[in-house]
Amino acid sequence: MTDRHPAAALVALARVLLEDAGLEPAKAAVVAEVLVEADLLGHDTHGLQLLLPYLGALDAGTMTASGAVDVVSDRGAVALWDGRWLPGVWLTAAAVDEAVARAGRYGTATITIRHSHHIACLAAFLERATRHGMMVHLASSDPSAASVAPHGGRRAVMTPNPIGIGIPTADEPILIDVSTSITTNGMSGRLAKEGRRFDHPWLVDASGNATDDPTVLQADPRGAILPVGGLDHGHKGYALGLWVEAMTQALGGFGRADAPDRWGAAVFVQVTDPRAFAGDEAFRRQSDWLAAACRATPTAPDTEAVRLPGERALAHKRAALVDGVALYPGILEGLRAETVRRGLDWPSALAG
Amino acid sequence: MTDRHPAAALVALARVLLEDAGLEPAKAAVVAEVLVEADLLGHDTHGLQLLLPYLGALDAGTMTASGAVDVVSDRGAVALWDGRWLPGVWLTAAAVDEAVARAGRYGTATITIRHSHHIACLAAFLERATRHGMMVHLASSDPSAASVAPHGGRRAVMTPNPIGIGIPTADEPILIDVSTSITTNGMSGRLAKEGRRFDHPWLVDASGNATDDPTVLQADPRGAILPVGGLDHGHKGYALGLWVEAMTQALGGFGRADAPDRWGAAVFVQVTDPRAFAGDEAFRRQSDWLAAACRATPTAPDTEAVRLPGERALAHKRAALVDGVALYPGILEGLRAETVRRGLDWPSALAG
Repeated sequence: MTDRHPAAALVALARVLLEDAGLEPAKAAVVAEVLVEADLLGHDTHGLQLLLPYLGALDAGTMTASGAVDVVSDRGAVALWDGRWLPGVWLTAAAVDEAVARAGRYGTATITIRHSHHIACLAAFLERATRHGMMVHLASSDPSAASVAPHGGRRAVMTPNPIGIGIPTADEPILIDVSTSITTNGMSGRLAKEGRRFDHPWLVDASGNATDDPTVLQADPRGAILPVGGLDHGHKGYALGLWVEAMTQALGGFGRADAPDRWGAAVFVQVTDPRAFAGDEAFRRQSDWLAAACRATPTAPDTEAVRLPGERALAHKRAALVDGVALYPGILEGLRAETVRRGLDWPSALAG
Repeated sequence: MTDRHPAAALVALARVLLEDAGLEPAKAAVVAEVLVEADLLGHDTHGLQLLLPYLGALDAGTMTASGAVDVVSDRGAVALWDGRWLPGVWLTAAAVDEAVARAGRYGTATITIRHSHHIACLAAFLERATRHGMMVHLASSDPSAASVAPHGGRRAVMTPNPIGIGIPTADEPILIDVSTSITTNGMSGRLAKEGRRFDHPWLVDASGNATDDPTVLQADPRGAILPVGGLDHGHKGYALGLWVEAMTQALGGFGRADAPDRWGAAVFVQVTDPRAFAGDEAFRRQSDWLAAACRATPTAPDTEAVRLPGERALAHKRAALVDGVALYPGILEGLRAETVRRGLDWPSALAG
C-alpha cells in the first residue's frame, strides 16, 4: 500500500466516501478534488490525511452536509458569508471563484467566512485565482483551538494562522502557504505520533522552556508552538498571527470571544486583478524579473539552489500527475478500513 | 543636546527646513508631523533621522517639491497613483486618508503608489485609519536598492519590505510594523557606524556564512540581511518579502525590472471598514478579547510581560507628549548645523 496511485482514482474514492457520509455530490466533488490537490502539491499533512476526520464530522453532524451560505452583508467589493459549518474546503473554493469574478469588476474583492468548517491546505486554492492572472491572499484561523503562544508567553492563545498568497508570473505562479507559527499542528501531531522531534526548539513547554519535543502539546499542563521568528525575533510572527485573527474572526464577527467548542475555521479571501492597476503585462514584467533574480541568486553553503515558494510543490504535482500520488504511510490503509466499515467497494484503480 | 524637546517645536523646525528646501507648505506640514510621529512612537531610525537625507533630495531635485499625483487608474475601490517622486511620507498619508474615505463606501479601498519617494515609518500612518475604527494594511519596497537575500542565497535581491497593520480595539489600537527581513537597513547602518554588532547572526557575508556583523552590507563583495526566520526557517520571511514586492512593484507597474537608480518607494495602502462586514461592535468584541488574552498570558522565563504590538510605542508616545522627545544622539546636532548652513534661526523652544 505504499505504491503510487492515480490522482483521479483518489479523487473518485474521496467523492464516494464523502457522498456516503451525506455530503451533497457537487460539494463532495470539490472537497475531494482540493484534498487530492494538496497531496499533489506534497502538502501531505493537509490532503487526504484529513478525509477521515471530515467523514467523522459529517457522521456526527458537526459538518453541515447541504445547502448554501447565508450572506450576512454584501457591498459588491466585499461580502461576509455565514458558512453554516459547511465544508470549509468547498466554502473557500467557492469564495475564491466568486472573488475572482468580482475582482474583474472592482479591482479587488474580499470575502470573509464565519462558521466555516476546516479548510485544509491554503496552497491548494491559489491556482484557482492565478490561472486567471490574478493575485490571491487567503488567511485562516480556528477560534475553537489554540496551540501557538504569543511572543514571550508560555500558554497558547492562537492557532498557526496560515497566510496563502498566489502571484501570477508569465511562467508558473509563485504559491505561498506559510503559517505564522514556526510549525503546524498537523506536523506536530505527526511527529508526536511517531516519537520524533523537531530539528530545532520550535515549541515551549508549560514552564516556557524552549523544546524540540512535539508531545508538549498533549502534556498537562500544555506547552505551545512558537510564532515565526522563535525566541530570537518571534515578535514578528506573533504580530502576523494577530493580524490573521483580526482579518478572519474580528471582520467575520465570530471568534474566540464566543468560546466555540466546534472544530472549524474563520476565513479571509481576497483576490486582486492587476488589470485594475498597471495591467497584466506590467505586472508580469516585474514578477518575472523577480522570479528570475531569485533563481539566479548564488547559494549559501549547503544550499543546492534558491527556489521560489511553490516551485517544489508544482514540480511535485507535475510528477505525481504522471507517476501517481505517493500517500503518507497509513492514509490509504485508513481509507480502506473506512470503505469496509461503510460497506463500499474498494476501487479497482487503486493498489492495495 | 541630549535633553527632551517638545514635539510641536520639532515639527515646527522640520517644517521650516522642508519649506526652505522648497517643499510646498501643506506637504511640509504633513512630512514634518509624520517624521516626529515616528520619533514619538520610539521608531527613531525612521523619524527625524531621515530629515537631512530628505532635505538633500529636495536640494538635488530627486524629491519633487510640488504638485499633485497623476492618477493612472481608478475604479473606486482601487486606484493606482503615480507619485512623481513627491515625498513618500506625504503620498502615503494622503493615500491612507483617501482610502479611509473610500472604504466607508466600498468596504475596502486599495491604493498603490509608484514613483514615490521614501515613506519613512509605516507605524506612523496607522492611527490615521484606526482612529476611524478601520483596519489598515501598508507595505513598501524600494526597487532601487537591495539588502535582503532570498532564503538559501548569499546575494541581496530585495529590500526589508515592511508590512504595517493597524487593528482598532475599544481601547488603544494594535499597531504592527514589521520588516519581512530580520532587521532593517536603518538599524544595520546605525550599528555599523557605531562599531557594534547584532545580538544574533542576522546577516550573511558574501560567501553565505551567517554573521552578526552589520558592516558586511558595506563590504565588497557585499553580504546581505536574512529574511525573517533566518537560517532556521527563513523560507517564511522570504515568501512574505516576495509578496510585498508583488503588491508594491508589480501592481504598481514600476520596479526592479526597470533598474531604477533613484532612492524611492513602491507603496501599497489598503483600508478595510469593519462596518461593511460584521460591524464595529462585533469587530471590537473579538479584537478586545484577543488583546486581553495576550496580555493575560503567563510569561516565559526572562520575560517581563506579554505585550501587544504597538503597546510600548503608544506608551512611549504618551510619555514623550508630556515630557518631550529624546532624539537619538547626533540628530539634533545635525539639524542645528543644517539651520546654520541655510541661514535660518534655531527655534528658542528647542534646547541646545
